[in-house]
Amino acid sequence: MAPFPDRLDAAIRRRGNPVLVGLDPRAEMLPEGILPQGINADPDKQARAYVQFCRGVIDVVAPLVSAVKPQAAFFEQLGPPGMAALAATIEYAQQMGLLVILDGKRNDIGSTAAAYARGFLGPGGQSAWGADAMTVSPYLGDDSLKPFVEVAIERGAGVFVLVKTSNPGGGMFQDLVADGRPLYRHVAEYVERLAAETVATCGYGAIGAVVGATYPEQLAELRAEMPHAWLLVPGFGSQGGTAADMAVAFDRRGTGAIVNNSRGIIFAHARSPYAERFGPARWQEAVEVATVEMIEQLRAETPAGKLDQ
Amino acid sequence: MAPFPDRLDAAIRRRGNPVLVGLDPRAEMLPEGILPQGINADPDKQARAYVQFCRGVIDVVAPLVSAVKPQAAFFEQLGPPGMAALAATIEYAQQMGLLVILDGKRNDIGSTAAAYARGFLGPGGQSAWGADAMTVSPYLGDDSLKPFVEVAIERGAGVFVLVKTSNPGGGMFQDLVADGRPLYRHVAEYVERLAAETVATCGYGAIGAVVGATYPEQLAELRAEMPHAWLLVPGFGSQGGTAADMAVAFDRRGTGAIVNNSRGIIFAHARSPYAERFGPARWQEAVEVATVEMIEQLRAETPAGKLDQ
Repeated sequence: MAPFPDRLDAAIRRRGNPVLVGLDPRAEMLPEGILPQGINADPDKQARAYVQFCRGVIDVVAPLVSAVKPQAAFFEQLGPPGMAALAATIEYAQQMGLLVILDGKRNDIGSTAAAYARGFLGPGGQSAWGADAMTVSPYLGDDSLKPFVEVAIERGAGVFVLVKTSNPGGGMFQDLVADGRPLYRHVAEYVERLAAETVATCGYGAIGAVVGATYPEQLAELRAEMPHAWLLVPGFGSQGGTAADMAVAFDRRGTGAIVNNSRGIIFAHARSPYAERFGPARWQEAVEVATVEMIEQLRAETPAGKLDQ
Repeated sequence: MAPFPDRLDAAIRRRGNPVLVGLDPRAEMLPEGILPQGINADPDKQARAYVQFCRGVIDVVAPLVSAVKPQAAFFEQLGPPGMAALAATIEYAQQMGLLVILDGKRNDIGSTAAAYARGFLGPGGQSAWGADAMTVSPYLGDDSLKPFVEVAIERGAGVFVLVKTSNPGGGMFQDLVADGRPLYRHVAEYVERLAAETVATCGYGAIGAVVGATYPEQLAELRAEMPHAWLLVPGFGSQGGTAADMAVAFDRRGTGAIVNNSRGIIFAHARSPYAERFGPARWQEAVEVATVEMIEQLRAETPAGKLDQ
């Protein structure tokens, strides 16, 4: 299996855009036909509805984008049936040719971190969950990140470390200044070291960074600080980030970053202007139009426009 | 349901000790009779072996201690069958009268954090996983912790926030000094605020802290900094912390802290002096003796000796 950074690079070039579609199923947001009201209390039925919904999204976006990001929390909320639905969703996405970045923000130390890494990382039957990459949290330090790095390298998988998050409270600890630099830059410095150590043909490493787009100046600063790290940029759309805000996340060739949108795409049927045009029955058309519009915005306003199409 | 801090306080007083038994099943460490060699590759068989093993541990420790701490990573490593085994383990522990603190170190923001909290927290059928408490990571800031706090309060559950961890690399970011104090003290200050806001009859709040015992001076400093927070102290035994090191974690009445031991208890059969005395076939006797010895050490060398027995 080729290293994850090269597989991601190739997939982005093939599709001509850096859009990452977040799969965040929420019972109360599913189109009426998929989860009728009143059965929300039954986790088995909800889990089946999640699989059906995610497959429906994947069917639409697989020809358009390179990767999806299932959010573990929404599946875990349902208990064991939800976890089976997560496994089915990952498998289906990969069958449809998509890379899967599992968003679980896991973290632990030593052999426990290794258990997470071995369980989640490694497509093609190498692990129980089979993700191409996963997100991890850095609070526990280097001996919590290294087991993820080792397993990722061994299995051609990737890791995205939380560096600077897009939420309003993200600065509470991440912006504390130590030795003249905020905490998130200390984390970035270490991520860049891991990225440089694992660099593949495309110029990026197996270790990337999650960097929110809600602070464009910090995004530019962190792009410069981590020249070998793929950036996973959340915050587009519902969190207020615009395509123009994302421009600084890319390198000059239009790669080096993937931009996530979850609710803005998968629940497009429930918001203006798509709700008026399509309504719940034609929710997949809303997903398609929202995805295409995001692709066009990013191609128009960022270096991603230089990618072949 | 009574608030978690009061339920924990009552359970500790009933048992007369603060021992927390970590349930970290690892295929390669299970006694031979439970997981015969050679079938390690089959996750369904491994998951059944994990349930059998954890039930065996619980049968021994339920009359002795107040709580267990299943480590999510080892169950998740097996994929969906492992998650079903985790659910079965939690349910059995509670049937046997134990409190369950799920160690998953989850973290995310806003509605995603709420999904984790709603899924994991709340015993007695209030949530899919039914844990009495769970561990969470603080990197994402206050809006990642508040959803856990809200659900915990609503459901009589608890949350333990990582403050200062026991691993060698824990200091890499946690010890960075900002505004004259290390990062972990900034986190501790916020945890104390949440603990004070959720204080119950016993004097402690629903929000506690994970504070490693490998640095006894910091443990004392953090006990003073968080007078309303239950401390979950890992690092006893296999990580090098002694009973005497733990003394400073307790209040004068002998409560306020729980001390975790995972491998040192559940895999006692594989290490000296228990291996020689019992061997794999009598592994449950090894678990019992190791638990009783830890209880005795903590009662002899810490204020926990003042608890009724």
